[in-house]
Amino acid sequence: MQPGNKYGLHRVIEPKGVLPQPANKIDNNMDILYDNEILIDVQTLNVDSASFTQIKEQSGGDHDKIREIMLDNVAKQGKHRNPVTGSGGMLLGTVEKIGSALEGKIDLKPGDKIATLVSLSLTPLRIDKIKEIRDDIDQVDIDGKAILFESGIYAKIPTNIPESVVLSALDVAGAPAQTAKLVKPGDTVLIIGAGGKSGVLCAYEARKRAGVTGTVIGMCHSQRSTDRLKALGFCDHVFSGDATQPVEVLKKMEELTGGEMADITINNVNIPDTEMTSILCTKDTGLVYFFSMATSFTKAALGAEGVGSDVTMIIGNGYTKDHAEITLAILEESKELMDLFLKLYSN
Amino acid sequence: MQPGNKYGLHRVIEPKGVLPQPANKIDNNMDILYDNEILIDVQTLNVDSASFTQIKEQSGGDHDKIREIMLDNVAKQGKHRNPVTGSGGMLLGTVEKIGSALEGKIDLKPGDKIATLVSLSLTPLRIDKIKEIRDDIDQVDIDGKAILFESGIYAKIPTNIPESVVLSALDVAGAPAQTAKLVKPGDTVLIIGAGGKSGVLCAYEARKRAGVTGTVIGMCHSQRSTDRLKALGFCDHVFSGDATQPVEVLKKMEELTGGEMADITINNVNIPDTEMTSILCTKDTGLVYFFSMATSFTKAALGAEGVGSDVTMIIGNGYTKDHAEITLAILEESKELMDLFLKLYSN
Repeated sequence: MQPGNKYGLHRVIEPKGVLPQPANKIDNNMDILYDNEILIDVQTLNVDSASFTQIKEQSGGDHDKIREIMLDNVAKQGKHRNPVTGSGGMLLGTVEKIGSALEGKIDLKPGDKIATLVSLSLTPLRIDKIKEIRDDIDQVDIDGKAILFESGIYAKIPTNIPESVVLSALDVAGAPAQTAKLVKPGDTVLIIGAGGKSGVLCAYEARKRAGVTGTVIGMCHSQRSTDRLKALGFCDHVFSGDATQPVEVLKKMEELTGGEMADITINNVNIPDTEMTSILCTKDTGLVYFFSMATSFTKAALGAEGVGSDVTMIIGNGYTKDHAEITLAILEESKELMDLFLKLYSN
Repeated sequence: MQPGNKYGLHRVIEPKGVLPQPANKIDNNMDILYDNEILIDVQTLNVDSASFTQIKEQSGGDHDKIREIMLDNVAKQGKHRNPVTGSGGMLLGTVEKIGSALEGKIDLKPGDKIATLVSLSLTPLRIDKIKEIRDDIDQVDIDGKAILFESGIYAKIPTNIPESVVLSALDVAGAPAQTAKLVKPGDTVLIIGAGGKSGVLCAYEARKRAGVTGTVIGMCHSQRSTDRLKALGFCDHVFSGDATQPVEVLKKMEELTGGEMADITINNVNIPDTEMTSILCTKDTGLVYFFSMATSFTKAALGAEGVGSDVTMIIGNGYTKDHAEITLAILEESKELMDLFLKLYSN
C-alpha cells in the first residue's frame, strides 16, 4: 500500500496543494487504498440540514430530481459537498478495510459499524445507487463506498439505540457539546431554532448548565415545533417567531428579560439572515454562538458593528472533544428526548 | 422633524422590516432629516480593504471604471455596500445638522469634524461627485452627504494627527482593540497578514500583552511588508508565506514553535481561502480571531471539523468598547508606528 497524507492531501486532484475540503475535485477511486485510510461500505448519508434544505428547494421536492442533483455533486467533485451552501453531512457504514499503517493502532476492525464525524464535504465518496430518500429526516440510503482519512473522526454505533436515531443525533453533536461548555449557572440563554433537532438537544444542555438560577428561552418557528418544545419542559419561556425579523423578536425578548437580553444566544436555524436577531437579542457584553451553516460571516461582523454591539460571536465548530459521547449521553439521560428521537428519527 | 427609529429602520425601502445593513435599498434623500439623525457633509470615504481590492480587480485599476462601479453601488442601494464582499468602510466629514431629538444630548455640534465608526454598508450616502481616488490607501474624496443613525458610533478627529492618518487607523480600530483584550502574558501569537495596516497595529498590541514571556510571530506575503514588519521590531519571528497554502505555512510554524503551534492566531488578510491555515497553525485548544472580511463561515466551520480541531473561532467584530481610543493611543505610544502611518497614509 502507498503511504497517504494524514489530512488526505494525496486524494486532492484540483486545485493542487489545498486540503480535501476546499478542493473542487478529489479522487474517489476506491480500488486503491492508501496505507492510512479506512474504506467504508456506506449504508446511509445523513445530509447536512442546510444542504438538504437547499437540494429540496432546488428540486421542488421531486425524488428523481434530488437523486440527479446528488449524483451530479459526487460525479463532479468526488464528494458530496453542496455547491451552494458549501456544507456536507455525515455517513453511516461498515468498515470494509483498514490501511496497513493503521492496523492495530485504532479501535476498529472490518465489520464494525461506524458513523463518520467529519463532514461529507471532504470525504471521498462513490455512489453506485441511491436506494431510498427519507427527506423528512435528511437521510439517504445508498450503495456506495467512502474513505476516512487518518485525521478523520468517527464514532462506533451503540447497539441499544436504533442506527438512524444515532446518526441523527451525531449529525448535530457539536451543538449540545458546545452548549455544555459555554453555559454557566445563572445565565440567561436564548436558543433560536430551539424546536429542531439540534435545538432540543441544546435546550436540554442549557437547562442543565444554567440551572435553577438561570433562564432558558426557546424560540421556534412553526406551531408544531413550539408545541413540541413546550411539552419537553426544558425552557422557562417558549415563543414562536421569525428569526429573519429582528425587530419583532427584539420586542419579545425585551418583554421576557425585562430589557436585559440574553447572556448567551445559540443560533440553530438553517436559513439565511438571522444574524441580526441573534446580535440584538444578546447583551452588549454577551456571546452569540452560530451553529447554523447558513450564517454569513460579513452579515454577522458588520451587523454587530452597525449597531455598536460589543458582543462576542463564535463560529460553530462541528467538532469538540467528546461531542459524540456527550450527545449520546443526553439521549440516555432524558427519557423525553429519547422518546422524541425514536418517534422522529427511527425508520 | 419626524421621529426616526434608533437603528434607522425608517430609511429602509426594500425589503421592508429589515435593518439598514441587510437591506437592498435604503432611502438616501438628505432633504428630509429625521429627529434622531446626524447629517454629515462628506469629505472622504475610506473603503473597506476587502471591498476596494475587489473593486480594483473588477476595474483592472482604471479610475474611470472605479468611479462608475462606486456610483453604481450607491445609485442602486442608497449606500456603498460592495455587492460581492458585502462590506463597506467608513467616512470622514463635517457635522452639518443634528436632529432635534439629539440636540444637547450628544457631544457634537455643527462644524465638528468626525469619522463614522459604523460601516458604509448601512450608512445612507449620496455621492454628488467623486473628486479623487487614492487607490494605494483605499480612500476616495467626494462631494456628498451621509446620515448617521442614533445607534451609530463616531469619533471626533484629533487635531494633532493628519486626518487621512486618523481615518486609516480608525478604519481597522477593532483589530488592535480586540487583540488587546485577547492576548495574555506568555501567549504564543501568530498574526497572519502582519505587515498590513491592521497587522502592524495588532503586532504592537500582541507584543505589549504577550510580554517578555510571550512569542509574537508575524507572517507577511510580500517582501516589502516582511521587511517593514521586521524593521518595526515588535515580533520574535517574521516570515513570508502564502496564507492560502496551509501545508507550507504549517511546516514553518512547526519549526518556529517546536510543534506546539499558536495559542492565538489573528487573521488580518483580505483574500479568500486562508481559514485552514489559521486553524492548522493554532493549538487544538487555542483561538482564531478572524478579522478578515474575506472569511467564509462554512469554510472555517467545516475546516476545523474536517481536521478534528477543537479550536475556538471568533468572528471579528469591527466594534469593541473604546476601540477608537485604544487605536489612536497606539499611534501616540509608538513613534515607529506613527512614522510609518505618516509615511503611508498622509496625503
